[in-house]
Formats: sequence, structure tokens, C-alpha cells
Amino acid sequence: MKLSARNVLSGTVSSVKKGAVNTEVVIALKGGPSVAAVITNASADNLALKDGAAASAIIKASSVIVATDMGSAKVSARNVFSGKVVKVIEGPVSAEVDLDIGGGNTLVAVITAESAKKLGLKAGESASAMIKASSIIVGV
Amino acid sequence: MKLSARNVLSGTVSSVKKGAVNTEVVIALKGGPSVAAVITNASADNLALKDGAAASAIIKASSVIVATDMGSAKVSARNVFSGKVVKVIEGPVSAEVDLDIGGGNTLVAVITAESAKKLGLKAGESASAMIKASSIIVGV
Amino acid sequence: MKLSARNVLSGTVSSVKKGAVNTEVVIALKGGPSVAAVITNASADNLALKDGAAASAIIKASSVIVATDMGSAKVSARNVFSGKVVKVIEGPVSAEVDLDIGGGNTLVAVITAESAKKLGLKAGESASAMIKASSIIVGV
Repeated sequence: MKLSARNVLSGTVSSVKKGAVNTEVVIALKGGPSVAAVITNASADNLALKDGAAASAIIKASSVIVATDMGSAKVSARNVFSGKVVKVIEGPVSAEVDLDIGGGNTLVAVITAESAKKLGLKAGESASAMIKASSIIVGV
Repeated sequence: MKLSARNVLSGTVSSVKKGAVNTEVVIALKGGPSVAAVITNASADNLALKDGAAASAIIKASSVIVATDMGSAKVSARNVFSGKVVKVIEGPVSAEVDLDIGGGNTLVAVITAESAKKLGLKAGESASAMIKASSIIVGV
Repeated sequence: MKLSARNVLSGTVSSVKKGAVNTEVVIALKGGPSVAAVITNASADNLALKDGAAASAIIKASSVIVATDMGSAKVSARNVFSGKVVKVIEGPVSAEVDLDIGGGNTLVAVITAESAKKLGLKAGESASAMIKASSIIVGV
């Protein structure tokens, strides 16, 4: 399978928590950090997800928010990865930002060109990536 | 109503399943396939959704992932439509891909320009569109 | 903290409703309107959200849908703000639209260039912004 989603992070399911409509799945990535995804129960059943199973977190670049100078700020986004900017490609409206988040994982974000400027993003700078659990697709 | 969301698919509600916070709604499209959406209970109540009611699935182009060579891959995205690429518009960062998913329905996706290249997307090629249930807005 | 998310709206928590997996949080903005967000329970616990607490709604520009001529149309998107277009920046694929939604709040949307054209968006025109509750991140 080839996907337009720029971010496909491989790992192992470490937790599956079922609600009435949605299921929360946590995937421990090979590089170390974990990713939390919220999917529908029907999907969780269809994928037969359980602890220890191999699974990937699929994340569209447009679902990734880039943050700098986080200090002690707290956000509800379940997934926050610290990293370093590897590359920035600027367009008239959008900009692509590639972040090295360690453990051999790269996260690609598409943000507005104005944000890329405002945050002073360029290769070598530190930056964090935030992703809501509901923006993540799980693949097996 | 006119919407910036490029994808507005009309159909009939075929299932409404309520949880504590969210409701899952399935809409059978006129062309044949069904679309699953997860919305808040308050919205479901406000829209008075029930089996047989007319409803539309509203989907932003940026919420659509394009996939090729899916083979037997399984993903948690509740909505996967097989189709054919009708058109690709490339920008420096983003690319718009229009897919004919049959039954008279077209799905527009915005992906990164690099993904469009990597997947070799061009008019006439087969490709699938994936959309998370939580990315879909329901209109009546 | 600096964020690539173009929309950070400040306010006060006015409601917290917990489900099995997700929590719905309503934030009353300083300007007047309220914003509903759906986040995971773990995040809600981590942020210690409760009525009266200061909180921000963080919204990516790509999560905002722009609508015109809404008439009596109803949508499941919990957040619909009426406003006026302040600025439009057009690219080959995407367009940025800045909306003044009153109370000193501006909402930035990234939509496709074709939608911006189709809706006839330009400075001074009326337009509404729609955002799904599940697209909103809460910060404290």
C-alpha cells in the first residue's frame, strides 16, 4: 500500500480502550515514543487490535501542528513530539516542515506560510509537533 | 448554502448509534457506497437524525488521504473508496487530486506535492480515497 | 508557546462532559461566542479542566470550512461563526481566508483556491466559519 499521508509510523499496540462509539489505541513506536489514536469501535474490531500487535499510525501532514517555545504550556493534543527542523519548503499559502523527532522518525507538517515565518522555522531549529488522537488512522 | 468544503455527498441516513459524547451516523450515498461520520450527541439531536432521513456528508479536501496499491492492507479509516484519478493540480507544496469514486460521485483531495509525485498520480490511474469518520460533517 | 496553528482563541471553560473515551469541553470566548471541543479523557484529566478555568481553543487553519448563503441549512459541525472576510491570499492549489468573527476574534481558514473562487470570497463579504468539535485542541 502506498499512501499520500506523509507520516506512517510503525510500532506495537500497547493499549486498547473501548468506549460506546470510539476506541482509544496506543501504539509504542520503534523509536521510543508512543502515539495515541481514537478510532471507531467498528474499525477497532475490523483490525482486531490487541496488545502486542504490529500496527502503524498514519498521519496526514495537514493534521500536524508545529510549536516552539512550549515552556510549561499544556495542550489537549495527546501526541506532542519534540524534534528538530530538517527542511522547510515554502509556497505562497502553505509551507511544508519536516521534523526529525528522534528514533529514526521524521514527521512532516503542512502549515501556513505565515506561520512558518512567524515561528522562524528553519533547518536546525528545535520545534515540537502536536497531533490530536482523533486525526490519526491506524493501519495493520 | 455554499461551502468551501469541496466534497458534499448526498444520501440517506441508514444508521444512528449514540454513545456518551459522540454519535456515529452512517449515510448511504445515492451512488451506492456508505459514509460513516462521528459527530457530537448535541449535533445529532440538533439535526434530528434518524433512519431514512436525507443527509449529506461534508468533507474537506484536506481530510482525504489518497492510497494506491492497497493490496490486503487494513486501516482504521472507516471510509475507503476505490476510484480513478480524474485530474491533478500541482502547486509548490500542495496538490489537488480529483477522484471519480463511481455512482456519479467525485472526491477532491489536497495532499502534498511530494506525495502526488511519489504515488505517480495522474488522470486515468486507479487510486483509493480514505477518510476518518471523525473528519466528516453531516448536513441536512 | 508559539504555535503554527493560526487560530488560538482565549476564554473560560463553561462545561465539561465526560464519556467513556472522550470528553466534550465548551469554552466561552472573551468576545462572546462559545467553542465546543472533543478531547480524550486522558487529556481532560491532564489539563484538569473544570468550569471557570482559563483555556484556549487551538484550531488549525486547514480544519476550518468557509460557508456562504447558509439560509436555514443545518450542519453537525458544533462550531459555526458568522463573520466578514478580511483578506484572501490565493495560491495555485490553496487559498488562505481571514475572517473577522466579532469580539476581536479573527479566524484563518485554508481552503482550495477553487472554493475561494466559487464562493466569491473577498474582503468585505459576509461568510461563516465551521469547525468540527473533534478538530479543536484545548490549551491551558
